[in-house]
Amino acid sequence: MAGNSRDAGRSVTARALSVLTAFDTEHTRLTLTEIARAADIPLATAHRLLGELEEWGALRRESDGRYCVGLRLWEIGLLAPVYTRLRREAMPFMQDLHQSTGENVHLAVRDGLQTVYVEKLAGRRSAPVISRSGGRLPLHTTGVGKVLLAYSPSSVLHAYCEGTLSRPTPYTIVEPGRLGRELFGVRQRGFAQTTEEMTLGSCSVAVPVRVHGELVASLGLVVHSARADFVKLLKPLAPAADSLGRRLAETSGATVG
Amino acid sequence: MAGNSRDAGRSVTARALSVLTAFDTEHTRLTLTEIARAADIPLATAHRLLGELEEWGALRRESDGRYCVGLRLWEIGLLAPVYTRLRREAMPFMQDLHQSTGENVHLAVRDGLQTVYVEKLAGRRSAPVISRSGGRLPLHTTGVGKVLLAYSPSSVLHAYCEGTLSRPTPYTIVEPGRLGRELFGVRQRGFAQTTEEMTLGSCSVAVPVRVHGELVASLGLVVHSARADFVKLLKPLAPAADSLGRRLAETSGATVG
Repeated sequence: MAGNSRDAGRSVTARALSVLTAFDTEHTRLTLTEIARAADIPLATAHRLLGELEEWGALRRESDGRYCVGLRLWEIGLLAPVYTRLRREAMPFMQDLHQSTGENVHLAVRDGLQTVYVEKLAGRRSAPVISRSGGRLPLHTTGVGKVLLAYSPSSVLHAYCEGTLSRPTPYTIVEPGRLGRELFGVRQRGFAQTTEEMTLGSCSVAVPVRVHGELVASLGLVVHSARADFVKLLKPLAPAADSLGRRLAETSGATVG
Repeated sequence: MAGNSRDAGRSVTARALSVLTAFDTEHTRLTLTEIARAADIPLATAHRLLGELEEWGALRRESDGRYCVGLRLWEIGLLAPVYTRLRREAMPFMQDLHQSTGENVHLAVRDGLQTVYVEKLAGRRSAPVISRSGGRLPLHTTGVGKVLLAYSPSSVLHAYCEGTLSRPTPYTIVEPGRLGRELFGVRQRGFAQTTEEMTLGSCSVAVPVRVHGELVASLGLVVHSARADFVKLLKPLAPAADSLGRRLAETSGATVG
């Protein structure tokens, strides 16, 4: 391999990327040994790659020797359209929604068969939620996820139901037939709701954000079950999603996801 | 070089990173040719690297053939401590500040000789500002920047003043002596303020966020000049920064910047 720079090159880039893959929500600070093991590369290779990644700012070495994701990688990541376009345009609407309701406001997109949370606004008095920006959750257990699934091509729902549907609470809908009927209802009504299907004590309502009729994201509210007045919550939510869709359509034809 | 995998490796990782460096706020969507030129690598090499980066999800190829930063790089970037720790803990305080004032709320850290904006909250009625999360601005022109400079080691101020101080408005303080006195005052008072020093029509006030007495960030408000009642703005701002500092001290001893 050392004599073939093309193969060596491919391998090295893949290795550098595998170092980054060692980091996830549960593992934000890792030692050299942990990274080498997670990336399945020799310690000496890991050491050299980490040095290069640190020098560039992709990783940062903390005072205890552990590595974490660096400021520069964070900055470059924020250039993704999901952030520069979708999140930027959505924020003022999300702020207003949070201000008028005091509840958790979520903006999410679908990536493959998962919900990716783009932004979450929560005050200190909002219901506790497990979502976080850049975090992933299943599609069938949350309001925004149901919207993303309901407005996707039917092939996505079929692929989704081929996997095992997780059941975080006894109220989660895990039967494919029942889920299909539920999603049909979402399209009919134009919004999704959940009642303690992800977290006991929390309910949600969500609506699609569409650009020229095409789904690009979902906007939702998560509230304490005791405050789950869906009609009242939809009143500011639906117009906000419509305005955001129009705003995205105006600002550019480029994809936002 | 092809016969030396160590050198080839170093070069390939550096090249892959240089591809990422081609992207910035002004260049979020680039063609293959533009990337090759910006990264100063041959077209064929760029093509191969882009394929690998796209496959992994670091970049995404849009329908018009242009590349942009991908969802996966954005997700990994969000694992940086500046986001997972600092921004997460700050958000509820920032939400409350935005809700009680209706103004732009900024959270910023210092990276070298620049202000890096970690988070910005703005409603549709807030004064227009040029900051953005992951964006950089000079240290001497904004409230949060002045705080970051005032509470840094004096060597930072000396290094800063060795460069040319930009002057975005006629009111920007660019004389090193005057700036030094201003920053002395910031430390005395415990807050910084600007009056149309970054943008005409906008004023700002900012305070330090300290963990065990050490500066980790700055929290600030930017308002229309007509609404620049600093005493009134400091009332919710200073306690919020103090509470955030205590919260960061409680949750972990690890660095947050």
